[in-house]
Amino acid sequence: MAGTDQEAVRNKQVALKHYVSGFPKESDMSVVTSSISLKIPQGSKDTVLLKNIFLSCDPYMRGRMNKSDSPFFVAPFQPDPPLNGYGVAKVVDSTHPNYEKGDLVWGFTGWEEYSLVTCPELLIKIQHTDVPLSYYTGILGMPGMTAYAGFYEVCSPKKGEYVYVSAASGAVGQLVGQFAKLVGCYLVGSAGRKKRYFLEGIDIYFENVGGKMVDAVLLNMRLRGRIAVCGMISQYNLEKPEGVHNLMQVVGKRIRMEGFLAGDYYHLYSKYLDMILPFIKEGKMKYVEDVAEGIESAPAALVGLFSGKNVGKQLVVVHGK
Amino acid sequence: MAGTDQEAVRNKQVALKHYVSGFPKESDMSVVTSSISLKIPQGSKDTVLLKNIFLSCDPYMRGRMNKSDSPFFVAPFQPDPPLNGYGVAKVVDSTHPNYEKGDLVWGFTGWEEYSLVTCPELLIKIQHTDVPLSYYTGILGMPGMTAYAGFYEVCSPKKGEYVYVSAASGAVGQLVGQFAKLVGCYLVGSAGRKKRYFLEGIDIYFENVGGKMVDAVLLNMRLRGRIAVCGMISQYNLEKPEGVHNLMQVVGKRIRMEGFLAGDYYHLYSKYLDMILPFIKEGKMKYVEDVAEGIESAPAALVGLFSGKNVGKQLVVVHGK
Repeated sequence: MAGTDQEAVRNKQVALKHYVSGFPKESDMSVVTSSISLKIPQGSKDTVLLKNIFLSCDPYMRGRMNKSDSPFFVAPFQPDPPLNGYGVAKVVDSTHPNYEKGDLVWGFTGWEEYSLVTCPELLIKIQHTDVPLSYYTGILGMPGMTAYAGFYEVCSPKKGEYVYVSAASGAVGQLVGQFAKLVGCYLVGSAGRKKRYFLEGIDIYFENVGGKMVDAVLLNMRLRGRIAVCGMISQYNLEKPEGVHNLMQVVGKRIRMEGFLAGDYYHLYSKYLDMILPFIKEGKMKYVEDVAEGIESAPAALVGLFSGKNVGKQLVVVHGK
Repeated sequence: MAGTDQEAVRNKQVALKHYVSGFPKESDMSVVTSSISLKIPQGSKDTVLLKNIFLSCDPYMRGRMNKSDSPFFVAPFQPDPPLNGYGVAKVVDSTHPNYEKGDLVWGFTGWEEYSLVTCPELLIKIQHTDVPLSYYTGILGMPGMTAYAGFYEVCSPKKGEYVYVSAASGAVGQLVGQFAKLVGCYLVGSAGRKKRYFLEGIDIYFENVGGKMVDAVLLNMRLRGRIAVCGMISQYNLEKPEGVHNLMQVVGKRIRMEGFLAGDYYHLYSKYLDMILPFIKEGKMKYVEDVAEGIESAPAALVGLFSGKNVGKQLVVVHGK
């Protein structure tokens, strides 16, 4: 059915006011109000209209606030609102054969109350609803696949190895720490600027922080250690990244350092769910979330990632289910 | 037979006068004269006496001139003469069942005219003498295995990939370049401080240089590129290694960076010889050597590595065969 004016509703959106250098501030973004029809416009094929439930605040989004020429792996945000990112949503209208009204999905959506998505192939339908739906922004979403791919696939952990996770209270780090324990590894974690001790050395380092942390870790790596480079949150707001001085350590210790993106591993998603869902239901995996209420709180929640304000996965509730 | 005084001969030795910081100088070493019996002392089991023919000058030796706490992977040189390192030698006496007078060997020996070796298991007997014997300090020795292991085993090259080798005129670099061509890769090489262009990007980087070179390369790496970290000669004489700022590149590009040592791959030595000997004999592999004459020239030859004085593999002739 074609949209008509009487079905238009308010649609608050988060906009980036300008490209950012240095630490992002809440005032770099604004919340603007537009309207949207709750019916897909006539003639729009293969489109879904989403009511956004949860939005995910992720560190990689900082890179998209740079105009360009960044060391990041994603395109800058567009000047027109809204920002976009991962989220959980309910389908309220669909002209795509794979989706129907009422379906729950997670994937890329807009930072707004409702989103018209013209490329729904990138959305994943949620099959398991007997777990908190917000988990699809974290343990059951992109951060979950990041931790799983980086730890199991990139690092090939073995029982008894020493695992160090930086940013161990973050969306990804808290999972790597629990995975390490499941495998029977010894775990050393750190969060923020706390002093770290590596009495026994490190076999596996899950890198979320960058800069001086890398130098400290390299000195403490053991023979044939592996470093999965997931991200470097301490560097994202610097004009020039800090220098890493101890790279020569990789030669004598035969260290392997490998960057990865969760996106390369989504073919393993159903395998991951088979592993993780029972652990969640049995209480063997915990997942800490930091929940901001309402789309107006989204800019502050996103900015908070870079001052370490969040404890656990930072997300924003936009709508109740 | 036990050694007797009348069989003692002069034995010139290279000594390290003191541990070094910064660039090493010829005057950091001295050539001292002692004497040695050409018969192994009575009662010395499993020992060989070597007449050294060629000594190998290798960049890693710089690390051994530091007192300690270095980022290197080898123990410091001992204060007593001589220095030691790779070389080619002839057995002049042996009490070890695997070696007899007249055997040619390569491996670890002293920087002196004659060496008494009490652990000859570390020496490799030379089976093929229809190639230049000096090649066992280079293409047929440790640098050859370094290039082979680093390129084929660490980098898994594929036809059509773009390969960049730094220090491409050195003992190892010149081999990696030729291996790359054998595989059907496109090759970009550089030596010294020449400006480099990477129009097509880099799939494989064979790292010999370190510092600013790594930063330049990281910016130009292609998706799923591999960096075999062999050494970082530009860094060995610095009080503090230069900082590398572009490590975040490894995430988006899924770069693998891996340190290695030839010593881990000697089980592949006979396989390597099977490959390389025919190429040498058919003229399909060239090997450039820079030969210094006489043990008195050894300190200058070693120091010259760090100012880029040598063209090709630097070695020292101690004795004719």
